[in-house]
Amino acid sequence: MNVGSTSCKMKFFVLPELAEVFSLRFECLGAEEGATCTLFEGGGRQEVPCRGVNTYRDAVGFLLRRVDASCIAAVGFKTVLSSRERTVAMLTDELVADMRSLAIVCPAHNPPYADAVEQCRSALPGVPLVGCFETNFHRTIPLCNRIYGLPYEWAKKYGVQKNGFHGASHEYASSVAAARGCDKVICCHLGGSSSVCAVSGGTSLDVSFGFSPQSGVIQLYRAGDTDNAIVPWLRQCGLSEEEIEKGFSVNGGLRGIAGIRGDMREILADGSTRSRLAVDAYVASIVRYVGAFYAELGGLDALTFSGGIGENAPFIRRRVCEAVRHFGIRIDAAKNEENAQDITAESSAVRVFVVPADEELVVAAKTAAFLQL
Amino acid sequence: MNVGSTSCKMKFFVLPELAEVFSLRFECLGAEEGATCTLFEGGGRQEVPCRGVNTYRDAVGFLLRRVDASCIAAVGFKTVLSSRERTVAMLTDELVADMRSLAIVCPAHNPPYADAVEQCRSALPGVPLVGCFETNFHRTIPLCNRIYGLPYEWAKKYGVQKNGFHGASHEYASSVAAARGCDKVICCHLGGSSSVCAVSGGTSLDVSFGFSPQSGVIQLYRAGDTDNAIVPWLRQCGLSEEEIEKGFSVNGGLRGIAGIRGDMREILADGSTRSRLAVDAYVASIVRYVGAFYAELGGLDALTFSGGIGENAPFIRRRVCEAVRHFGIRIDAAKNEENAQDITAESSAVRVFVVPADEELVVAAKTAAFLQL
Repeated sequence: MNVGSTSCKMKFFVLPELAEVFSLRFECLGAEEGATCTLFEGGGRQEVPCRGVNTYRDAVGFLLRRVDASCIAAVGFKTVLSSRERTVAMLTDELVADMRSLAIVCPAHNPPYADAVEQCRSALPGVPLVGCFETNFHRTIPLCNRIYGLPYEWAKKYGVQKNGFHGASHEYASSVAAARGCDKVICCHLGGSSSVCAVSGGTSLDVSFGFSPQSGVIQLYRAGDTDNAIVPWLRQCGLSEEEIEKGFSVNGGLRGIAGIRGDMREILADGSTRSRLAVDAYVASIVRYVGAFYAELGGLDALTFSGGIGENAPFIRRRVCEAVRHFGIRIDAAKNEENAQDITAESSAVRVFVVPADEELVVAAKTAAFLQL
Repeated sequence: MNVGSTSCKMKFFVLPELAEVFSLRFECLGAEEGATCTLFEGGGRQEVPCRGVNTYRDAVGFLLRRVDASCIAAVGFKTVLSSRERTVAMLTDELVADMRSLAIVCPAHNPPYADAVEQCRSALPGVPLVGCFETNFHRTIPLCNRIYGLPYEWAKKYGVQKNGFHGASHEYASSVAAARGCDKVICCHLGGSSSVCAVSGGTSLDVSFGFSPQSGVIQLYRAGDTDNAIVPWLRQCGLSEEEIEKGFSVNGGLRGIAGIRGDMREILADGSTRSRLAVDAYVASIVRYVGAFYAELGGLDALTFSGGIGENAPFIRRRVCEAVRHFGIRIDAAKNEENAQDITAESSAVRVFVVPADEELVVAAKTAAFLQL
């Protein structure tokens, strides 16, 4: 179960082979024009009528009414953040309560996951529910890249450190690059949520997300990196707590700059000055992290692009790669336009891959291993 | 007048030559063991007894009681932030009031400058007082590097954009590198406040400071980059507004991680695990920006080090330069230990300079030009 910040995906695997049987993807949850549901099966795809599905809860319920509980050995969740577990763990009631207590840190993620777990517990009694936390892959980040310039006690007592997210995606993309012989990899997961990760020898060295998924690269509707004096200043300017909070978590990001709703496709199609500024600022925020992580890694073998934008927006990939040409990166223009899996140009010193994120496979494999299924 | 975050410097120049006559530097203001005052004159230096001087206000008063007002043509201030003026301007009462209204954004800087201006206005009636704002050099930063992923209206209406600071230092250091034929320059000002700046063709392209001087590189006692979910989380953990605010602005930074008072010399001398972590995290935060700006600049001709740490801590320069060896940077170990002005090794593709920051000269020159003295 992948309850994303703008979509909800469920994928079914047969054990022990981890062979994918089918998957359902809900998109546009919460949109005025209603959500869509797509069934992927046997290499094909078809739209599934899903009238009445508006929320994550509706989407999970829609699915649970259609599965035969007796076939389900376990459900793995791509859970985001807990203060108790950073890796893989049984989703007990206590752990779900802990996830809810962190709603203020991950407002777009933790409550929907907690809801989905509780729905599954009702509908699939006795089935083990396993959380594969996004922080898992980032447990290797050295403390000096993880600590903030804040009182040390806050890190120990309140967990105020870089947590890092998108672990399943970065783990998957870097493993694809590793299988092609690349050791030092920068992974760009660009989508409704975007992040950049530095991977060395298969382990995460750093990631653009921080304590929360509210920082790093500019997000679709969340802020990304800001400055801690902005909130008190806006308060002094007379804005309410709610206006400020919403500006950071719902009305910000690419949409906030561009001033339009919709996703990257619409922002790219819109020719306005503000939409172009949003795209320029987004690319700049990615390039900044690619450079930062190129410095931290001490070299670079591969750059990967995953996520809805990373996999499907040749223009964004081209802009990023052109900005860092001096790192020895060259892409093949035609392959890039086709969203080919390897878009490296012959003259390139660094390989560039488009890696369709299979976060669900990572979660299924970790769940099966955890339960020894 | 340079009323810094940990020191207070006043330098006297003869016009029109801009020849330095003498300067006074107060350090350790607010320290329990009392402040120190050093007089620099004719190439020599001597300690000046300054019992009773504890605050910026005391230091400015100490000076003003000893100067002959009739000799002073103008006073230039290295002012930090105003919402009305970003470049050079007469410090009217209205402008000083505006600076005070931004105390919440620059708590360590704007109030002491406003105080110093008012003290000078009383003691030197009729003498023009000119503010050379730190934002001046950064007015060239492109909007896409300046805007946050926040509602666009906030940028227009409330000025919520990257302002950038340390303008005088970065302008000076990059001009020294330019005089030696370097076009693309990354300037590291490392001291009580630290920042990194990307300079191309003499103009600022980006800087690690953001809307306030509270962000970017880890500072001596201020946070540097954090995550906007930390404050609401600490509030939920039961911390008071004051504890949180102080953790970011007074009890954080290198001191907060290391858990000792004192400056970089003491942190480096202290062998504790936490002090070593503070140094590692500081170096990592500098390296991250050097990499980010190397990406943004599309190449690099020179790296400069200024500020109390940048000019006097060979260990920190070596750590930073070794981390980015793959950018073609090599330093001469012996010259680095001597704090020589050019520490470039023969094999280096990028030049590396130690540039003693002469922010006061930049301020004096701008003040004289502004007043056509």
